[in-house]
Amino acid sequence: MHIRTVGLKGLKTPIRVKEKNGGLQNTIATISMQAQLCEGNHENCVAAFTSILDDYLGEFSVASFSSILPRLQKDLQATSVRLEMTFPYFIDKKAPVSDTHSLMEYECTFSGGIGDDDGFILSVSAPVTTLCPCSKEISSGGAHNQRGEVTLNVKFKNFVWVEDLIEIIEQSASCEVYALLKRPDEKYVTEKAFNNPMFVEDVVRKVALLSLEHPDITWFSAGVESFESIHKHSAYAYVDSDEVR
Amino acid sequence: MHIRTVGLKGLKTPIRVKEKNGGLQNTIATISMQAQLCEGNHENCVAAFTSILDDYLGEFSVASFSSILPRLQKDLQATSVRLEMTFPYFIDKKAPVSDTHSLMEYECTFSGGIGDDDGFILSVSAPVTTLCPCSKEISSGGAHNQRGEVTLNVKFKNFVWVEDLIEIIEQSASCEVYALLKRPDEKYVTEKAFNNPMFVEDVVRKVALLSLEHPDITWFSAGVESFESIHKHSAYAYVDSDEVR
Amino acid sequence: MHIRTVGLKGLKTPIRVKEKNGGLQNTIATISMQAQLCEGNHENCVAAFTSILDDYLGEFSVASFSSILPRLQKDLQATSVRLEMTFPYFIDKKAPVSDTHSLMEYECTFSGGIGDDDGFILSVSAPVTTLCPCSKEISSGGAHNQRGEVTLNVKFKNFVWVEDLIEIIEQSASCEVYALLKRPDEKYVTEKAFNNPMFVEDVVRKVALLSLEHPDITWFSAGVESFESIHKHSAYAYVDSDEVR
Amino acid sequence: MHIRTVGLKGLKTPIRVKEKNGGLQNTIATISMQAQLCEGNHENCVAAFTSILDDYLGEFSVASFSSILPRLQKDLQATSVRLEMTFPYFIDKKAPVSDTHSLMEYECTFSGGIGDDDGFILSVSAPVTTLCPCSKEISSGGAHNQRGEVTLNVKFKNFVWVEDLIEIIEQSASCEVYALLKRPDEKYVTEKAFNNPMFVEDVVRKVALLSLEHPDITWFSAGVESFESIHKHSAYAYVDSDEVR
Repeated sequence: MHIRTVGLKGLKTPIRVKEKNGGLQNTIATISMQAQLCEGNHENCVAAFTSILDDYLGEFSVASFSSILPRLQKDLQATSVRLEMTFPYFIDKKAPVSDTHSLMEYECTFSGGIGDDDGFILSVSAPVTTLCPCSKEISSGGAHNQRGEVTLNVKFKNFVWVEDLIEIIEQSASCEVYALLKRPDEKYVTEKAFNNPMFVEDVVRKVALLSLEHPDITWFSAGVESFESIHKHSAYAYVDSDEVR
Repeated sequence: MHIRTVGLKGLKTPIRVKEKNGGLQNTIATISMQAQLCEGNHENCVAAFTSILDDYLGEFSVASFSSILPRLQKDLQATSVRLEMTFPYFIDKKAPVSDTHSLMEYECTFSGGIGDDDGFILSVSAPVTTLCPCSKEISSGGAHNQRGEVTLNVKFKNFVWVEDLIEIIEQSASCEVYALLKRPDEKYVTEKAFNNPMFVEDVVRKVALLSLEHPDITWFSAGVESFESIHKHSAYAYVDSDEVR
Repeated sequence: MHIRTVGLKGLKTPIRVKEKNGGLQNTIATISMQAQLCEGNHENCVAAFTSILDDYLGEFSVASFSSILPRLQKDLQATSVRLEMTFPYFIDKKAPVSDTHSLMEYECTFSGGIGDDDGFILSVSAPVTTLCPCSKEISSGGAHNQRGEVTLNVKFKNFVWVEDLIEIIEQSASCEVYALLKRPDEKYVTEKAFNNPMFVEDVVRKVALLSLEHPDITWFSAGVESFESIHKHSAYAYVDSDEVR
Repeated sequence: MHIRTVGLKGLKTPIRVKEKNGGLQNTIATISMQAQLCEGNHENCVAAFTSILDDYLGEFSVASFSSILPRLQKDLQATSVRLEMTFPYFIDKKAPVSDTHSLMEYECTFSGGIGDDDGFILSVSAPVTTLCPCSKEISSGGAHNQRGEVTLNVKFKNFVWVEDLIEIIEQSASCEVYALLKRPDEKYVTEKAFNNPMFVEDVVRKVALLSLEHPDITWFSAGVESFESIHKHSAYAYVDSDEVR
């Protein structure tokens, strides 16, 4: 058995990520890396990895993977390399009525490999509001609702932006979530959710439909966890493109 | 500086905890312990601690601390000892309409010291529903609501049960939370929360009032975190008995 | 798109798990469940699920899945069902020299499905000591070492016990880990680790070899994370049976 | 009981923090805030808070608290305000022999109040290596060692920098920890730790001594948790300036 793995996990480092609008965003990535080596030793590999990575951290994007992975593979003399970076990503959102600006945080993961385990996956997690259709239907007033979290993972043929996946997610729930809302905004989001009741499986189905329609997404999986306000556990639904095609 | 501390953190062990109704409940405690020693060495202390603890784990209660702490102090020749145990605790709850039984999980902490840092604190965390009064008032239908978590910490003169603190917490929110609800129960909890809107500061004030009225509670602090369904952050309120007397 | 999922996540409940030695161990499981339904509604499904589960929690084992899954599938009229239970599991270990007994905690997961996503996976995570061969070789005294965590996931033809996987893991590292050690034990484990230096990829290779040799294991994957004492990040290695056969 | 709290928890936002060397560092803060109000309503308060905070996030430092808190108090018409910000902070470290540069991550908290609960606390957590004196003494080779985490909280009369607290912590353990080490560095840190064995209480005592000697620190508390390589639990020691003066 010729296993010669070099791997690290949980390395944090500041990076700057390209935004869809052309800007550069400062954030902090948690990195894991694995390489299957032909030969070589540990110490040089981690140093080589870190040194290569340094060349890209100042202006990182999904596209960086297509040049960083072959370089890692060559310099490490590796049969395969896998790299994963998770980071918070902020978007300037306008409140729906008052237009008040605030920064909303999302969690993104870039995950790519070359060699045995190739392919690139872009993942985004975003909070949403879910409002229970059953609770609304049977109750004389109100309906239980709660924060949920949608995670969407995609493969694509042409580059897809983090912003595109967030848009898919936020169109798919009872209402989207904001960092700052004024009084008229709170009225708007309350009523929007109340008029748009969805179970977790409704949310996951909507995410799936929008992902299927997207011209560049070639594979996806989506999970929705709803932190039920009437229970201590979550409601959960999952779907991937293998199930729906 | 004569610091001779023996301490451990994160030790997990099965225990059986006395229930208010006379039963014994199997659960798993995460234990931390600290002792200030006059003399002695590490190894013997941790062994002594574990061996003493073993005598109590089969039938543990708040009362166990008043015999375990002096024994630890004496055997370890310690000037002070501090012991903390956190464990999940289950209560058989009946759904409000259908009477369906289910086990609901709460988190409890027993924390006590002898010597410099004496006194015993009983803590319970319980999930609740909070429904926003402002959202209800301004919206044409519905109101945002969400799961919240209330933590109540108390000192007392006569023993207070975990069950007593859970009762205080569950009376203080828009609605209590259940592990299992059938259709008529879901209607009930939805309507109860809708008719009982409370901000986090309303919940904390109610917990404070009930704690002040309790004949055996001599000190308390309470925190309420509400996992807002319209935001990614939480609303939070805190009060302790020093502030309200 | 006909997605009708019923799912829940993060439900905690007390269970009793069968031990290899014939005993029954009280512990607390965190449960997630997913079903793809032909028809039916939410409320009844979760209630049905909970009610079926209740019949098994008093004496749970790997074997329970082969009767619980078909029953869930039938009662829920589901095309597929997936169930996952994670729980701490304690084993009475003897210290290597003094024979002192103590309870050591491991984390186990039973994960099984019926329908589209069938098959059962048994997973165990166990802490170990790893001691760096490179550090030992180049240093005039000592060698950096640290706690590591090994996770082994297996499929099997005849039932394999949690105890069997723990045995594989604990034979595969620089040294195994204990809840309580006396002075002569501490000398033993220090020297054993020092005489048995292993990188994470050495540990993962040993786990793989022992899993390949096991007559009942038909598939496995293993990951080793070492919480490096000289870094803030972890060293990590992974292998599965597809890579080594 | 006149409790009118406005509070939030878990709000994430990008900030730029002043470095001791004059630079500005981009990082991401997790913010909690609490205010006791005379009058006013929720919505305006959170908006006011966010708007005030925005003026400072571009160039934040310990000093910002002395202007942000009075402004919050005045604008919110609050009797007291409490603000807490936790963020990762990176320092460019040189490896001890090869001088290789790498960014090392620390966790910092700024916590300050005005009104009933005034005073400012600066906190830093840093990873270190601890090597067990007992294990070294009794063993024929090696000694168990592991990553530990030291948390130092201080009050001061003249501003103290995060960098100053990191320096105190990293001088107080068996060895400091790095993000990147080459072969000669690994030899150096292994030998340094082996020649410098310390129990957690030795580390906490050293941190306490250096904090007492610091001319600007007026109060401190320090905790050391050592993730024992031979156990699944941690060794832990704690001290504060009230105990040692």
